[in-house]
Amino acid sequence: MEAYFDNSATTCPCPEAAAAAAEAFTRYYGNPSSLHAVGTAAQRRLEEARETAAKLLRCESDEILFTGSGTLSNNAAVFGAAKALRRRGNRIVTTAVEHPSVAQAMNRLEHEGFEIVRLPVDSFGRVSRGDLQQAVNAKTVLVSMMWVNNEVGSIMPVEAIRSCVRRSGAPALIHVDAVQAFGKLPIRPASYGIDLLSASAHKINGPKGAGLLYVRKGVKLAPYVVGGGQEGRGIYSGTQPMPAILGFDGAMRALPELHVQLEQTERLRGYFVSNALTIPDVVINSGADSLPYITNLSVLGHPAQTMLNYLSERGVYVSGGSACSKGHRSPVLTAMGLDPARIDSALRISFSRFTTQAEVDILLNALSGGASALRKSY
Amino acid sequence: MEAYFDNSATTCPCPEAAAAAAEAFTRYYGNPSSLHAVGTAAQRRLEEARETAAKLLRCESDEILFTGSGTLSNNAAVFGAAKALRRRGNRIVTTAVEHPSVAQAMNRLEHEGFEIVRLPVDSFGRVSRGDLQQAVNAKTVLVSMMWVNNEVGSIMPVEAIRSCVRRSGAPALIHVDAVQAFGKLPIRPASYGIDLLSASAHKINGPKGAGLLYVRKGVKLAPYVVGGGQEGRGIYSGTQPMPAILGFDGAMRALPELHVQLEQTERLRGYFVSNALTIPDVVINSGADSLPYITNLSVLGHPAQTMLNYLSERGVYVSGGSACSKGHRSPVLTAMGLDPARIDSALRISFSRFTTQAEVDILLNALSGGASALRKSY
Repeated sequence: MEAYFDNSATTCPCPEAAAAAAEAFTRYYGNPSSLHAVGTAAQRRLEEARETAAKLLRCESDEILFTGSGTLSNNAAVFGAAKALRRRGNRIVTTAVEHPSVAQAMNRLEHEGFEIVRLPVDSFGRVSRGDLQQAVNAKTVLVSMMWVNNEVGSIMPVEAIRSCVRRSGAPALIHVDAVQAFGKLPIRPASYGIDLLSASAHKINGPKGAGLLYVRKGVKLAPYVVGGGQEGRGIYSGTQPMPAILGFDGAMRALPELHVQLEQTERLRGYFVSNALTIPDVVINSGADSLPYITNLSVLGHPAQTMLNYLSERGVYVSGGSACSKGHRSPVLTAMGLDPARIDSALRISFSRFTTQAEVDILLNALSGGASALRKSY
Repeated sequence: MEAYFDNSATTCPCPEAAAAAAEAFTRYYGNPSSLHAVGTAAQRRLEEARETAAKLLRCESDEILFTGSGTLSNNAAVFGAAKALRRRGNRIVTTAVEHPSVAQAMNRLEHEGFEIVRLPVDSFGRVSRGDLQQAVNAKTVLVSMMWVNNEVGSIMPVEAIRSCVRRSGAPALIHVDAVQAFGKLPIRPASYGIDLLSASAHKINGPKGAGLLYVRKGVKLAPYVVGGGQEGRGIYSGTQPMPAILGFDGAMRALPELHVQLEQTERLRGYFVSNALTIPDVVINSGADSLPYITNLSVLGHPAQTMLNYLSERGVYVSGGSACSKGHRSPVLTAMGLDPARIDSALRISFSRFTTQAEVDILLNALSGGASALRKSY
């Protein structure tokens, strides 16, 4: 029996997502920009998907843009905000543990002359409100912070950004990469004063190939991807990836009550962690207050890839760090100050809403087996 | 009975595309960057798709990058080339009739200080080799030209660019937007010395949401979309849109012999044009040497949108100009020097390889009916 625990890298699409996506191949094959009946049918269906997202985020549907990926949403937000506000200041505040699609964007902006302040994290990957408050000054044009870290599940103080910006008198826009939080925590950007928020379909059992970007009404973003200007009245371009967007719609509609699901996952995480800690040499790298869907742990003495292969051969799939930073030592765990031995043996176990206790038992058995088998083999 | 003639805006995916895409929801749901068996299965399937594209373009598979759209391929190519060669020159040569995803990119580069030379077109939308040769000088860092114009089907002298660049001693990279040509003409970038070439899945009966970018081996492109660096060893980022890419693969594999298909379409275009010209007030705006899949015509005296609506109500779907330039007077027809009356009544009729003579008859009947009915109503 197989057990998939790499849901923070990607999920298996749910039946509702697959069924909705399939309709983009038949009923809704038109180009939403075409002005005839086939086009307007596609356009109307696209607007329904937008309304689904808007309902979840408690916002207006014209505040939702569809993009091709979470990465594209992040690039469009970070570059678009920096360019739009370039004349009003030079400082950007972010964290040391962002996803590469934000972190690399920051590196480029730094190269172009922006002052990038990367907030440090504590040993559980958390940013402190005090550091945030100190970092935001009157010259700050953008604060970009992930809601939930993708490697350890730490939850960031995104609710505190607006008051820091207000207090400093900064013209800053606030961007939150909510790719790992969307569909798992209740996300209402307006209630936190968030201007820009990114999410991705394939992290919530939707298809790979669609992202969304919330752009608060009145916020002016410079377009990053240019062309026909199909989304957000010119902010983002390209014929909409209808199969992925409709699949995203299906996945969003199929989401259960988030707080019920969260409590259930919290219990499952508790079960997993308490049992994992009985395996010799296992240490947990995620904090107890992290999102319960993500647990980072190290099986000390066992290189992550060796353990990952051992598990994979037995039909148990976990990640060594993040799928997005293949081959590099995790900058997240490094920023958390973990020693190299712990980093090199770190595994990310990520649940989806479909994860069962039976699967967790399979994982625990395999982990335990791996730890002892590999110990003997050295 | 319906007849769809807006295939240059988008096509209805073929069964092979739908079937291949569906497998991304089940068998190949993994993240190609994940290092366990589910990830490597997805990775291997992705490489098969890459090989399909490489075979069609007669290139190596590691010269193929998958992106989220033709627009993203064009943005990545134009911005990536301009940035990579910025220190070696300031001049970019393009045409006055590019797709907005190239034209808008050029506008931005112009704003950033590049000198943009936009080659004029003749009354059939064709660029002359003489103009091209004159425009390319030693300071030219990029020549970007579409293979086939999306509104009138004119074929550009892309085969002449390399010799112009060589003669001038320019360090220029050559980019060709082949979105309307790919799968219709035999495209072999290496044989024309093309460095970068864009194509899109949904113009060849694949799904919306996947593009490809050919990057000739040895060509250094600055990354435009940044993040995990999943494609082209860092040139393009984001988890690959697997359903759309696998659907693209299915559509590419299902392509018929291009020259047979082209001859057939040529005959069908001949049939359509000769009959259309018997309808009063019809003039053909496309040249006889244009790609037979695209015919632009005007029904003089009838505003395009009025005729488009008349046809749409009867199940016949055509475009008024390009779906990508909704609401604006076509810059392509303007550059061709057509008078406003002709531009405002212009329709684009675009065939796919599935278009039949029976459908063309439906179109001819509806066009003829529309021309006389609307004439009476004024």
